[in-house]
Amino acid sequence: MSPIITAFERSPDRGRGLARDMRVRWALEEVGQPHEVRLVSFSEMKQSAHRRLHPFGQIPTYEEGDLTLFESGAIVFHIAERHAGLLPNDANARARAIAWMFAALSTVEPPIVEREQVPYAEGEKSWYKERLPLLEDRIRVRLDDLSIRLGDADWLDGEFSAGDLLMVMVLRRLEGMNILDEYPNLSAYVARGEARPAYKRAFAAQLAVFTGKPSNG
Amino acid sequence: MSPIITAFERSPDRGRGLARDMRVRWALEEVGQPHEVRLVSFSEMKQSAHRRLHPFGQIPTYEEGDLTLFESGAIVFHIAERHAGLLPNDANARARAIAWMFAALSTVEPPIVEREQVPYAEGEKSWYKERLPLLEDRIRVRLDDLSIRLGDADWLDGEFSAGDLLMVMVLRRLEGMNILDEYPNLSAYVARGEARPAYKRAFAAQLAVFTGKPSNG
Repeated sequence: MSPIITAFERSPDRGRGLARDMRVRWALEEVGQPHEVRLVSFSEMKQSAHRRLHPFGQIPTYEEGDLTLFESGAIVFHIAERHAGLLPNDANARARAIAWMFAALSTVEPPIVEREQVPYAEGEKSWYKERLPLLEDRIRVRLDDLSIRLGDADWLDGEFSAGDLLMVMVLRRLEGMNILDEYPNLSAYVARGEARPAYKRAFAAQLAVFTGKPSNG
Repeated sequence: MSPIITAFERSPDRGRGLARDMRVRWALEEVGQPHEVRLVSFSEMKQSAHRRLHPFGQIPTYEEGDLTLFESGAIVFHIAERHAGLLPNDANARARAIAWMFAALSTVEPPIVEREQVPYAEGEKSWYKERLPLLEDRIRVRLDDLSIRLGDADWLDGEFSAGDLLMVMVLRRLEGMNILDEYPNLSAYVARGEARPAYKRAFAAQLAVFTGKPSNG
């Protein structure tokens, strides 16, 4: 039985693939796991039926037989543990790839989400424009270090892994902010992720939700 | 050979156990794994020798033979995978415990860290006091959901797990803010974590760094 994931019925990013279901779609495509996508509206997400799947009323969720999961990082990890292609076989390399998964979500993503949300949360406030450079500098603190560590390597630690998948998705949230242009190696890294056939299939599937054309997801 | 972790030589929390080494110390105590603690100063953390261990120049790190890890979530997971006591044996329950690890660090912690940092980052700004209630309401959005999910259970999903360990540590960052008092079941949950013998040993060891008395770590 194919796993079922949830995604926005109408993503606020209008099909740019920035919502967190894209991470799970990409992971499933990397390992060649067929899956179903169930679309949920914003009002459904906050109702008790969906909250039984996701305590925080968000997407994505993952249902597979008796198992229900939430948190995109945990879902990607679950997929990576059960299929070849997203985590190295070598135990130490595997542990390091998992460290990059946590780094993407715990260290790099939070200041990016802060910057992304502030126009909606505080766009009307008097301080809005004065705070923007502070928020962008906090992103640069992380990107400076990430750029140095990546150097001229293709991926963060050897072969492409679930750590790269999550890091690429986190960095993609900077689209339209110009900050990533200051880091040519990180821009190339994101482009390298986007060029993967599995990424392209996942992107097309989530875009199809927005355009209304049938998904192959 | 015992693993070596790093911690602040002088923690900014003055021994309250809020720095991220406490998570790793607690996990190591839960599984009964002896370990060494190497203290690093703020200037050492930003130098290249430490950055080889931690690309973002932070603590904790974890060294064990050929393996070097960073990110407290990844280190706790590594410990939990290799020793009994922090993840359930049942595959589905294990996956759900891992989901709570990610939920603690990706969903619950970011607004708490925002609130924690703002006095240092923006305490002198004209908007500082007006923004505080906004930041605290963002924390409540998460705690409302978490409190409902926990209900009157002891732990988030069955037995105590690495997911609870990280969630308790994340909630402890609210100490001194009074918000947690609004959620009696979450306050009791944190107290339940703090009452564990392994927690107490880890807390005493990190406090000893601040008081200057020898650690049993």
